[in-house]
Amino acid sequence: MGKGRVEAFTDGVVAIIITIMVLELKVPEGEDFSALVPQLPIFLCYVLSFINVGIYWNNLHNMFHTVQRVDGGVLWANLYLLFWLSLMPVTTAFMGENHFATVPVAVYGFDLAMCATGYAILVLALHRLHGQGTAFAKAIGTDRKGRISLAVYIAAVALAFLNRWIGVGLYVVVALVWLIPDTRFSRVLEK
Amino acid sequence: MGKGRVEAFTDGVVAIIITIMVLELKVPEGEDFSALVPQLPIFLCYVLSFINVGIYWNNLHNMFHTVQRVDGGVLWANLYLLFWLSLMPVTTAFMGENHFATVPVAVYGFDLAMCATGYAILVLALHRLHGQGTAFAKAIGTDRKGRISLAVYIAAVALAFLNRWIGVGLYVVVALVWLIPDTRFSRVLEK
Amino acid sequence: MGKGRVEAFTDGVVAIIITIMVLELKVPEGEDFSALVPQLPIFLCYVLSFINVGIYWNNLHNMFHTVQRVDGGVLWANLYLLFWLSLMPVTTAFMGENHFATVPVAVYGFDLAMCATGYAILVLALHRLHGQGTAFAKAIGTDRKGRISLAVYIAAVALAFLNRWIGVGLYVVVALVWLIPDTRFSRVLEK
Amino acid sequence: MGKGRVEAFTDGVVAIIITIMVLELKVPEGEDFSALVPQLPIFLCYVLSFINVGIYWNNLHNMFHTVQRVDGGVLWANLYLLFWLSLMPVTTAFMGENHFATVPVAVYGFDLAMCATGYAILVLALHRLHGQGTAFAKAIGTDRKGRISLAVYIAAVALAFLNRWIGVGLYVVVALVWLIPDTRFSRVLEK
Repeated sequence: MGKGRVEAFTDGVVAIIITIMVLELKVPEGEDFSALVPQLPIFLCYVLSFINVGIYWNNLHNMFHTVQRVDGGVLWANLYLLFWLSLMPVTTAFMGENHFATVPVAVYGFDLAMCATGYAILVLALHRLHGQGTAFAKAIGTDRKGRISLAVYIAAVALAFLNRWIGVGLYVVVALVWLIPDTRFSRVLEK
Repeated sequence: MGKGRVEAFTDGVVAIIITIMVLELKVPEGEDFSALVPQLPIFLCYVLSFINVGIYWNNLHNMFHTVQRVDGGVLWANLYLLFWLSLMPVTTAFMGENHFATVPVAVYGFDLAMCATGYAILVLALHRLHGQGTAFAKAIGTDRKGRISLAVYIAAVALAFLNRWIGVGLYVVVALVWLIPDTRFSRVLEK
Repeated sequence: MGKGRVEAFTDGVVAIIITIMVLELKVPEGEDFSALVPQLPIFLCYVLSFINVGIYWNNLHNMFHTVQRVDGGVLWANLYLLFWLSLMPVTTAFMGENHFATVPVAVYGFDLAMCATGYAILVLALHRLHGQGTAFAKAIGTDRKGRISLAVYIAAVALAFLNRWIGVGLYVVVALVWLIPDTRFSRVLEK
Repeated sequence: MGKGRVEAFTDGVVAIIITIMVLELKVPEGEDFSALVPQLPIFLCYVLSFINVGIYWNNLHNMFHTVQRVDGGVLWANLYLLFWLSLMPVTTAFMGENHFATVPVAVYGFDLAMCATGYAILVLALHRLHGQGTAFAKAIGTDRKGRISLAVYIAAVALAFLNRWIGVGLYVVVALVWLIPDTRFSRVLEK
């Protein structure tokens, strides 16, 4: 089964997620600067989520680049990842509208953790299909960065109940680490 | 007429449907766990509909793979299917917000049944165009799985008036049966 | 300039228009059949607009098929058409929520007429680029069907102030006439 | 890294932005012409933003046409531009719903200025990758038009606090200047 339409569908869904997220940024009520202040935490959440979804798109882009083909398992692993990504507009707004209250921060982190499991499952499904020694296997290695991110997200959700800013801080740290695009793939591709 | 743009348009519409559905998941009011409880039935409906739309995408993906060309009849059969799929965000929210009340459950099933008729009509339109002995005809066979699903949906709508949980249960059963991707196409394709 | 990305962009915008239109179908309030009754006119408007947008997609699909290249004029003519198409979700909801009141019916028809002018301008822009004797020129001919539709829409808007049902009836008639796909293109393409 | 998927993703995001903007055009309350009057400033803002987003799409379309390849820097520069473009539906509605009040006008201009910086950064990222003497470098030149637009936007934001209509007027002027498609690229492409 060719990978073209999976790429196109994934691009489409991610493009829509990243764009409809902004619909949760309600139009400020009032016409002076003070109307913008309550929007600030929501805006910051939006920036964080935009970067997170952008990271997923970049990584999926690079990953599928090294992939030769897909099967039913890959399609559903991908849909599972897209499911949790599609919840990001809602969990983002939940965290922003409640000004980073504890439970919304934990829910946001839970969503990020579920996305990370989706990414891990997708890596496994592609691994099973492509086997050792292929460009994909070489590029992804043991997906250490993905596994560590998942562990940090789970820790962040737990620590958010101690102090919510630890949770938020860890989400930002993981995003910054990934913002540097996954050079594993480009390294292999350029050889 | 080439099939490329029909595939692209279908992918686009399905990607949008699956993503805007989440917009009906209202942001919970309140900032503790109790705020999440009333969202639970809506969330479960969302999961069910995400899987249903995912199934349609997978099946359309596989089906168009074996197809050589399309005509006006196929375009409109496809649009008819997309019409009923596009109502899924509304019927999903209607069922979820009313906590699986009888009429919303029946309306949701009616929408699923209409999607199933759309799928059946699309199969017929492609059959007429490709004829016996083609890859498409071999792959789709008599589309028994599709016809049985349609019958189960109609029964589920009727039985929902006896007990709404029978209706919901049948929708879940059909989704689980289809979750196993339609191996008829991959079987033919791999030969 | 290649036509591929214009097609892709147009497909994307039309796919989004046809899908977000459903977001104006508010989730019915209440859980029995009586909750569905006030939704009926909105639903019928939705059906009509879904068909109208579907017709435009089919015709654009066929038209660009015979086209060799595009220029800046074509890009903007296309964007002008997409502008008026993108207003269809709002004008549809306006007509439906006001149960086919006179002014909303006229506004809906005005939008249809503007779409028709957009189509006519796009035909002109492509004509200028491709000239006589090309597949495009042969297929489109004098675009009589498009011009008559535009005239009927304008008449329908005026007549709606006499009796709104004349307006609505004329919109339905034009849609039915176009529902038969534009065979001019397929005729030429199959030669 | 191929440019195909970046183009497709960009097209998708821009198509969604241009289309969901219309969702902020609330359905008028009431069924006669007077219901349309308060919508007029929002409608005019929508027209202006539709043209602005259309200009970006045209320019990105032409720019990527001359581009050979992309890297991580280009992907993120592009996402940065898309981020500010994705805020356009909200800043448009903010300006329209407040009937061109000073702060909303300035916020709208700030968004336009940020888009212009995104465009400038994208040009730089592509420049670094393609170097002197390539089709891209010849086409883009020193991107004078882009730099002047950015300067005008910044001036317009400042001048809006003197008189908001100066700000609005300058946004319109820049849009009109760009409406003439960027012939620099087509000039090079046609050689």
